[in-house]
Amino acid sequence: MKTSIYILASRPSGLPSPENFLIENSVLPELKEGEVLLKSWYISVDPYMRGRMNDVKSYAASWELGQPVSGGVVASVLESKSKSLNSGDTVFGMLPWATYSIENADKLRKVDAQKVHPGYYLGVLGMPGLTAYFGMKEICKPGPGETVVVSGAAGAVGITAGQIAKLQGARVIGIAGSDEKCRMLREEFGFDETINYKTSKSIRKEIAELCPGGVDAYFDNVGGEITDAVVQNLGFNSRIALCGQISQYNSTKIYLGPTLLPMFLTRSVLLKGFIVSNYSDRFGEGLSQLIQWVTEGKIKSAQTIIEGFDKLPEAFLGLFSGANKGKMLVKID
Amino acid sequence: MKTSIYILASRPSGLPSPENFLIENSVLPELKEGEVLLKSWYISVDPYMRGRMNDVKSYAASWELGQPVSGGVVASVLESKSKSLNSGDTVFGMLPWATYSIENADKLRKVDAQKVHPGYYLGVLGMPGLTAYFGMKEICKPGPGETVVVSGAAGAVGITAGQIAKLQGARVIGIAGSDEKCRMLREEFGFDETINYKTSKSIRKEIAELCPGGVDAYFDNVGGEITDAVVQNLGFNSRIALCGQISQYNSTKIYLGPTLLPMFLTRSVLLKGFIVSNYSDRFGEGLSQLIQWVTEGKIKSAQTIIEGFDKLPEAFLGLFSGANKGKMLVKID
Repeated sequence: MKTSIYILASRPSGLPSPENFLIENSVLPELKEGEVLLKSWYISVDPYMRGRMNDVKSYAASWELGQPVSGGVVASVLESKSKSLNSGDTVFGMLPWATYSIENADKLRKVDAQKVHPGYYLGVLGMPGLTAYFGMKEICKPGPGETVVVSGAAGAVGITAGQIAKLQGARVIGIAGSDEKCRMLREEFGFDETINYKTSKSIRKEIAELCPGGVDAYFDNVGGEITDAVVQNLGFNSRIALCGQISQYNSTKIYLGPTLLPMFLTRSVLLKGFIVSNYSDRFGEGLSQLIQWVTEGKIKSAQTIIEGFDKLPEAFLGLFSGANKGKMLVKID
Repeated sequence: MKTSIYILASRPSGLPSPENFLIENSVLPELKEGEVLLKSWYISVDPYMRGRMNDVKSYAASWELGQPVSGGVVASVLESKSKSLNSGDTVFGMLPWATYSIENADKLRKVDAQKVHPGYYLGVLGMPGLTAYFGMKEICKPGPGETVVVSGAAGAVGITAGQIAKLQGARVIGIAGSDEKCRMLREEFGFDETINYKTSKSIRKEIAELCPGGVDAYFDNVGGEITDAVVQNLGFNSRIALCGQISQYNSTKIYLGPTLLPMFLTRSVLLKGFIVSNYSDRFGEGLSQLIQWVTEGKIKSAQTIIEGFDKLPEAFLGLFSGANKGKMLVKID
């Protein structure tokens, strides 16, 4: 079987470009015992992958130069030499960005592509959903009537985090990058208020007006000036779930901003940087809850689906210009 | 009875000066039922009082212009109209900076000035000791073999925090502002390593050399560039007890520094800003433990005692130039 696979051609300095990726064509070997042949169906592009393009030790291993790029993929089993999977099954796995690939069945998780859209396993029922769940439930911990601010609110994690906060009885304010996204958050996803950071004259003042009693919890996906503005409005004993810093991922120099620590001190702020794998022993719990909420219609999903294997670099780069509403996915024909 | 009492004459911009304080002489009224007449013995000056000089809402109420300045005081009871206290008793209270004062007995705590030095109730067995105890035990939580960095290590809180970390089996690195303080921390207080931040060519590099496995916990009393240097060396799942930011208290503009959030994110850092009153329901537990450690000689105290009521402003200002080793106290004749 022939396959096409993306390799990391070069490491970017600053904003990545499509040229950092290169497609290589090859022929897959014969299946060995326990392996399955997979046809990629939906490939996930995620902001955290920007870190994997760097040759710097971080929480996710670097992609190696000249080697396949990989991440979350939903795929169909074409052929199986494993007893646990059959041809026609749909699976989730950490797989190369490839049209076809071979993997050991025990590294794959069978999913039900009938009950929900298969892309959900890369979004609300996958890593982004679990990230939102643990960040909100374990760090932000909003109580009824508390005010929660979510940055990057129209992204895959933020849109889920905001809905989870609503389910805890909190008032939720989302920060996003277009009027259209803001409208969607309010009208389709139940956010109480929104701020368009691209057109706001002062994010700090807008938050102050919307949160006269202070911000009780902040779910941060973006960092930078937006976060500086939110931190000015934190209330006493407030919590920050530090989930992402997408505004900084392409910076070639360190952002110099106001020191936030004196504010964290005088307001007794709790801040926790986290990655979803911190909670890997509780993924079962998180997933059951998310499946229940999605099934009951209490949490909705938004997906931006780009079609075509050749569009993968473009879809990935789109994350940094806010091209996505909710989860960004690439559908492979 | 005549008394002299400090009032806040003006609010400083930047570094306070002695002129911000003014002594007023007055005559105390007759004692009412339940009250005691007190002669101040030791008056505490603490970094957090700098915030009380500002007209800004914070965790400690502002001192009012033209009104008495107050804080922790150890005093002798001269005369009592309360059944709970007798003439000759030693008490701790939140009292004005005065030579003599009157207070309700139920707002005072009787202390034993025979068993330990009376100044201890303002230091290791007082607010600074409890601050060190809860910050280290509840936030830093060092395990055996872990590496803990303490900034402001030769101050009242830092010197206690470092010793508590040692009692948890941790390796402790103190950052202080003179070779003499560093020597004291190592030779008299059991710190494993020290860094003199005033002579260090690169605090960041010194910490990197001393902590090749990364810093597991950081007890921060100072903020600013020292903290920026420590944060660069934080390990995965590390903790920051954010206790003080003395380097920033006299700033008239906000310190612009490198954003620390991306480091907090990728290293899953927990940061908690705190003030000792967050743990007020557990002061009994903390105090019992501290008394036991002090009695057993496991925690030592350092005090810098300035003599003379007229030296109070000078002693307070000395906190910001590092004039103190351990707890800064003013002894009233």
